[in-house]
Amino acid sequence: MYDILKTVNSPADVKKLNTDELNILAQDIREALFNRLTKIGGHFGPNFGIVEAEIAMHYVFDSPKDKFVFDVSHQSYPHKMLTGRKSGYIDDEHFKEDSGYTNPEESEHDLFNVGHTSTSVSLASGLVKARDLKREKYNVIALIGDGSLTGGEALEALDFAGSEIKSNFIIIVNDNQQAIAEAHGGICEHLNELRATKGKAENNIFKALGLDYIYEENGNDIKSMIEVLQKVKDIDHPIVVHINTKKGKGYKLAEENKEAWHWCLPFDKNTGKYTISFPSESYTSLTVDYIMNKAAADKDFVVITPAMPMAAGLTPDLRAKLGEQYEDVGIAEEHAVAFASGIAKAGGKPLLVTNSTFIQRTYDQISQDLCINNNPATILLNYTSFDGLTDVTHLGIFTIAAFSNIPNLIMLAPTSKEEYLNMLDWSVEQKEHLVMILMPGNAVTSRSADKNFSNINTFKIEQQGERVAILALGDFYQRGEELALQIEKNLHFKPTLINPRFASGLDEKLLKNLANNHQLIITLEDGILDGGFGQKIAAFYGSSNMKVKNYGLQKEFYDRYNPAELLQKLGMTSNQIMTDIETILK
Amino acid sequence: MYDILKTVNSPADVKKLNTDELNILAQDIREALFNRLTKIGGHFGPNFGIVEAEIAMHYVFDSPKDKFVFDVSHQSYPHKMLTGRKSGYIDDEHFKEDSGYTNPEESEHDLFNVGHTSTSVSLASGLVKARDLKREKYNVIALIGDGSLTGGEALEALDFAGSEIKSNFIIIVNDNQQAIAEAHGGICEHLNELRATKGKAENNIFKALGLDYIYEENGNDIKSMIEVLQKVKDIDHPIVVHINTKKGKGYKLAEENKEAWHWCLPFDKNTGKYTISFPSESYTSLTVDYIMNKAAADKDFVVITPAMPMAAGLTPDLRAKLGEQYEDVGIAEEHAVAFASGIAKAGGKPLLVTNSTFIQRTYDQISQDLCINNNPATILLNYTSFDGLTDVTHLGIFTIAAFSNIPNLIMLAPTSKEEYLNMLDWSVEQKEHLVMILMPGNAVTSRSADKNFSNINTFKIEQQGERVAILALGDFYQRGEELALQIEKNLHFKPTLINPRFASGLDEKLLKNLANNHQLIITLEDGILDGGFGQKIAAFYGSSNMKVKNYGLQKEFYDRYNPAELLQKLGMTSNQIMTDIETILK
Repeated sequence: MYDILKTVNSPADVKKLNTDELNILAQDIREALFNRLTKIGGHFGPNFGIVEAEIAMHYVFDSPKDKFVFDVSHQSYPHKMLTGRKSGYIDDEHFKEDSGYTNPEESEHDLFNVGHTSTSVSLASGLVKARDLKREKYNVIALIGDGSLTGGEALEALDFAGSEIKSNFIIIVNDNQQAIAEAHGGICEHLNELRATKGKAENNIFKALGLDYIYEENGNDIKSMIEVLQKVKDIDHPIVVHINTKKGKGYKLAEENKEAWHWCLPFDKNTGKYTISFPSESYTSLTVDYIMNKAAADKDFVVITPAMPMAAGLTPDLRAKLGEQYEDVGIAEEHAVAFASGIAKAGGKPLLVTNSTFIQRTYDQISQDLCINNNPATILLNYTSFDGLTDVTHLGIFTIAAFSNIPNLIMLAPTSKEEYLNMLDWSVEQKEHLVMILMPGNAVTSRSADKNFSNINTFKIEQQGERVAILALGDFYQRGEELALQIEKNLHFKPTLINPRFASGLDEKLLKNLANNHQLIITLEDGILDGGFGQKIAAFYGSSNMKVKNYGLQKEFYDRYNPAELLQKLGMTSNQIMTDIETILK
Repeated sequence: MYDILKTVNSPADVKKLNTDELNILAQDIREALFNRLTKIGGHFGPNFGIVEAEIAMHYVFDSPKDKFVFDVSHQSYPHKMLTGRKSGYIDDEHFKEDSGYTNPEESEHDLFNVGHTSTSVSLASGLVKARDLKREKYNVIALIGDGSLTGGEALEALDFAGSEIKSNFIIIVNDNQQAIAEAHGGICEHLNELRATKGKAENNIFKALGLDYIYEENGNDIKSMIEVLQKVKDIDHPIVVHINTKKGKGYKLAEENKEAWHWCLPFDKNTGKYTISFPSESYTSLTVDYIMNKAAADKDFVVITPAMPMAAGLTPDLRAKLGEQYEDVGIAEEHAVAFASGIAKAGGKPLLVTNSTFIQRTYDQISQDLCINNNPATILLNYTSFDGLTDVTHLGIFTIAAFSNIPNLIMLAPTSKEEYLNMLDWSVEQKEHLVMILMPGNAVTSRSADKNFSNINTFKIEQQGERVAILALGDFYQRGEELALQIEKNLHFKPTLINPRFASGLDEKLLKNLANNHQLIITLEDGILDGGFGQKIAAFYGSSNMKVKNYGLQKEFYDRYNPAELLQKLGMTSNQIMTDIETILK
């Protein structure tokens, strides 16, 4: 097992292999991918499809002198195995040493820590620029997928490279005819045309932008890939190498269902079934039901997603059923937001869904295209909790700080199934605001909730008490409940428990009233403290006698942490908070 | 004077005119533009160049039933004159009634409040979507300049329209061969090719993306424009109408120097000279000197701008002198940031300059491409003060809240000439952080300053005092000085005056020490309070006895305000703050 892979400790070892051995190496790499992915999950399709291309890249080029930049870098596992990190794939005890993305801390062969799409051409063009300023000589190679090409950052960079770079720059477009879900956009249809004509279509977008272009049909054949890369090595101008590959190659289930196998949880190789199970009801399943019912009842309602339909649980069959009431705009978050603003302006009811980390692309569009115009739209964000995605590039903990300080933006943080669904429907129906809803990251809980949120920034007192008031926002509401019980038990008085609901503003009347019979306010929020909710409360009481203590995450790029351990480290368990409260009340 | 223009009270009146009268109308509109722009300034070139096209648009289409969306909308003045707002141009007393951009509050003919580039195709495609969902029938027309086409949001939207829209959508590409400065990027060179071949170039990027295409050479001829628009009116699919126009047409100086006349201050029509004067030394002139000296001394130093060279005072002759050490990437802020990260990674020293409002496009790139990677780059921002650009789409007051809460980002707020230049040079030379510098918006002041800022988050005590400590950040430092004097005079004790310098973190040691002999902290910042600097201070002292009072702007989209009046309204004059202090200290 892994006979050839075991001989490869660096790219130099790849260069020693003959064609037959390289083909066996590809088999070894796929076996190693199975070993890791069946046990801990990760990106499946992107890695299985790129094995031959990355072997050829290391065979032809000389990393780290030559520089590879991987778009999203979710397809970099074969590269990692070839650059001294195979133990993270073939040796279960070493899985944790490798992140799921390129990471300069792991290896000099990784240039950037990357996890969002459409950045590789731009990052790589910076390497080109510095290389040329320093009069150095090496190849710079960006590897980007067809799905990532629809992102504005990638398009800006291609446009730049086509006219401003006059030196070596190799852009490999890995065309596997798929984004996460099906690919969308004119450029993807154009790639279809280029493939159908073996690169000789009537119009060529890359040439139109000033880039040289070459097509390679056999992107999963090592020999063909070596030949085409040898042709472009040391080239003196920018060129696009358009390669045709099969996403998920080497696993029939993945080849047949590319979307389901873009990314996987631990699974059984024989059946393809996940080896962990899910609760039947989740906030995602609630979202699906809401969307399908709403769409059937209201023809003005339209769901938009920038290539993340599964953020709302929208499987292909449901998307088909939604028909014209569903728009996957491709990986194009900026367009998605402005598009929603246009729909709202002309009387539609847009619901934009994606993961919170990706909405960061749209700070300006949310501010300018939506909020200044006060066009009514709903942005529903998944994975906003610290207890969700823990890769440094996919953290949800910045969402409140990033967006709640934009004027006219109403940010809602629901705390139960009923509240979530009521907020969603209220938001879709209202005609005055951009509303951003933080989809809960907790298990589903049930509690009665209001239906109308048009009285903006009204907090809800869920338990009236005295001395200490706990403002427990969104996903941390249940922690607030727990803390309230503990205070009652240990300190023998009943504290006030408040569900703020609105993360983007203060209920000043309620806060003023609290001052009558409370000495201390505790704020709990599932996000960083700086720029967040609690600091607004602290500032509100700043010149009064009220004490305020904020609990939340630090302004830090956490990476692959254990959520429970992190809370403990931050002093945020109920016991730790109890100790603080006793000290302050003394 | 204005004989024909005076007869036009709505687009219906345009349709009554014959060709000769329409040509006179164009003359009238240019005279009206002169009347307003010589007296109060505004966007010159974009409006002078588009007069004939907008007359033709209103002649052929039926606004407001048909919908026009203007990119940036800095070229919408002729449209405004034709839609009942001519008095804002021909009657000096009514200038203030019209903003410099489209504005739905002014007229039903304006769909969006717009001021940033590259949004029109996306916003308009949203109108298309809602129209089709509602089974309505009208034309949707986006007007976008060649310079704006390099922005990711525009490219994403073109890509979307080319494959996802199957109904009426007209995209007028106004090609005047110029961005604000010279146009950059492959797409602009491609437009040159399309013009040279009268639209018949070998490759056509619009067709490659799936869009229909038609070329009109005479974009400044009303008859030709009417003919081409009549051809595409009521079309059943998306089409690009590529028109060739002359920026600044009708004023020789502007036709010859398109960059200088993109935008103007009040000027004398005969000489073209501005009728207001400037101080010889400004923070911009200091920046120019720094850049030119640094570039000459260090070949690794490179200035990047997304089409805003004048944000750093870089005139065409200076840009030429900088040579390969200058990169205008076109209107492509996202690429600019990732490009800077690549340069830094490969050992270059990138300085990215633009206006603060435009850097909003890059929240995600700053976080992911730069800060997670900790690549050393400098982002220098102009117009960060509330006392700078006052149009709602161009406010600088959100910069601190938007960016200071990103981990690893060091935000510096200089308070004098020496401090500014020292910070700039320290930042360019350091190798550990992304540093964002807020270029002062005040008149240049002089005061000795430190040279090394590598001890991150160390505030500077400029005056040691007692009882009250004033933390006066950046542009508001001088207000802090004034307040300190007033406290000394009125309350007979000397307060402590602190120059925080770092807007992105706290000097916890210094803050703890202040607690020894101070009761009240006053924070002053030139930005919104929510998510800003002062709230961090309030939170720091939240559970202590220290009182904290924050002064800054409210979270609000202010529009065309008088800065002094706004401060008064917000209770931020020294006298008003003195009253607050006396109340709190009682």
